[in-house]
Amino acid sequence: MHAISQYRDFFLTYLMNQSIRKEPKNLYEPIEYIIGLGGKRMRPLLTLMASEVFNADYKKALPAAMAVEVFHNFSLVHDDIMDDAPLRRGHETVHEKWDLNTGILSGDAMLILAYQYFEQYEPAIFRDLAKLFSKTALEVCEGQQWDVDFEARKDVTIAEYLKMIEYKTAVLVAAAMKMGAIVAQTSEANANLIYEFGLNLGLAFQLQDDFLDAFGDPETFGKQLGGDIIVNKKTYLYLKALEFSAKEEGQQLIDLFSVQLEDNLDKINVVKEIFVRSGASKATQQAIQQYTFQAFDTLEKMDIEKDKKAILRAFGEDLMGRKV
Amino acid sequence: MHAISQYRDFFLTYLMNQSIRKEPKNLYEPIEYIIGLGGKRMRPLLTLMASEVFNADYKKALPAAMAVEVFHNFSLVHDDIMDDAPLRRGHETVHEKWDLNTGILSGDAMLILAYQYFEQYEPAIFRDLAKLFSKTALEVCEGQQWDVDFEARKDVTIAEYLKMIEYKTAVLVAAAMKMGAIVAQTSEANANLIYEFGLNLGLAFQLQDDFLDAFGDPETFGKQLGGDIIVNKKTYLYLKALEFSAKEEGQQLIDLFSVQLEDNLDKINVVKEIFVRSGASKATQQAIQQYTFQAFDTLEKMDIEKDKKAILRAFGEDLMGRKV
Repeated sequence: MHAISQYRDFFLTYLMNQSIRKEPKNLYEPIEYIIGLGGKRMRPLLTLMASEVFNADYKKALPAAMAVEVFHNFSLVHDDIMDDAPLRRGHETVHEKWDLNTGILSGDAMLILAYQYFEQYEPAIFRDLAKLFSKTALEVCEGQQWDVDFEARKDVTIAEYLKMIEYKTAVLVAAAMKMGAIVAQTSEANANLIYEFGLNLGLAFQLQDDFLDAFGDPETFGKQLGGDIIVNKKTYLYLKALEFSAKEEGQQLIDLFSVQLEDNLDKINVVKEIFVRSGASKATQQAIQQYTFQAFDTLEKMDIEKDKKAILRAFGEDLMGRKV
Repeated sequence: MHAISQYRDFFLTYLMNQSIRKEPKNLYEPIEYIIGLGGKRMRPLLTLMASEVFNADYKKALPAAMAVEVFHNFSLVHDDIMDDAPLRRGHETVHEKWDLNTGILSGDAMLILAYQYFEQYEPAIFRDLAKLFSKTALEVCEGQQWDVDFEARKDVTIAEYLKMIEYKTAVLVAAAMKMGAIVAQTSEANANLIYEFGLNLGLAFQLQDDFLDAFGDPETFGKQLGGDIIVNKKTYLYLKALEFSAKEEGQQLIDLFSVQLEDNLDKINVVKEIFVRSGASKATQQAIQQYTFQAFDTLEKMDIEKDKKAILRAFGEDLMGRKV
């Protein structure tokens, strides 16, 4: 096994050696651009790590890891269009730098390119990977649709919100790890357990994202703090605060989340106060811990060496304690 | 073997029995809508026909045929956004009936759904189908990008135009037929020959489309006649007319194709006259015939029964003589 940072380096070296730029350049340049913008590369490195957890050489998992990363970037390009986002990782989004049509078409091509990376495997592995990939990709689309639908709804339940982030975010983390297991040709039981592990960690990861968006350290958090509050996003924090608040304070929160202000500083501070006072902030931290522990539980059932369980556990603990 | 109309009926029966509508409905309803709008269903019926040409039961080819049709509809949904088209088959386009985001996301889901239809085959066939599909889908994206690029260019050559329609249209016709061959597990030589057959027929089909758009019978042609002329589309007819025209008339054509008019009747008539007088109209008909004959040539090399060759030939002749 290698260290997390090593898997990231292995992946980046592989990524750099891919020749994405082909003709027509208006189709492929945006793809090279968005994939080159960076990010944590968390999903692909999980594929590599999982492959070695199940005793394969990480090199065998590189094409699958690349498929996951290309798909993730596809979803970013199309989501940024839908959210009308000007920036991604501090740079112009594809539809801003080029145009709407380029964003749509380059995204489409990326979805297909992701599938093509599986062609480097033998038929049975190819089929298992592509099947898992299709199921996951469709769930990500469904999650995105729920997310869009929820914007216009006032009665979103916590169960619905959790299902949405499971589909939009967690299933890809889970699938990234299971792909490592498939490439390593481990038992189906192990493959399903690492999927469970990834799913719970993915949920913890997204709830942590929600939490840090409001309560992150401005010194270390990469994005604008309070971004979710500014756009009135009904996150776990918000839904829990509504659940825990008395009628009056709940209405205040609803009112605050139905306006778009020029200056958001006051709004952010008031909302954060409600999040803390209502106990929503604490409940979110507990949920993060709970999903992380649930992930750790699946490790117990996994048929792998003890030191490998320790590595996966350490990764989960790192993720739970992250500040960015 | 069955008659063309029977393959269409078989396919439609299969299509009707698919349960596409799932949750979230805002994702799946548009998919059901666009797939239900109709069309000639030419591509899927070619998959069924090809499978029986190579001695398989057409039933085995139904999921592959469905994949081709779902992909074709995916490309329509996204192309209609890019072309800002209000109507498709006489009905509102998806992004018009719903909105931009729905068009993007439902399209994405359709691309993934198409891949899922291959999961009904054993690993080796699954892999061959998915590989051909990915290659083809990427080429269709490239063709669409060339098409977009050509709008802004004044120096498009006939060779470039032919490459564009090959990628945007012909490769999917070719792949639809080759999928039938793959499902039937015929020889690689046969599979490649039916691909060539489909590719040449696909080119003839698109050139026929260009021709009918200007010279079709208003009584039988489904779309608005002269549509390409109205939007200044540089089709084969236009490029050939430029090639054949003396400098003055060529300039007249260029001028006519650089304006957007309120009333297009005069423009259409003048342009059509130039198309005829320059010999471009005749050259287009010759090219259609040439590609059709090239398709027939590949039949000679195919290792199948004589009566099957006759059926494929009759289909090609029908296509060449079509009025809609």
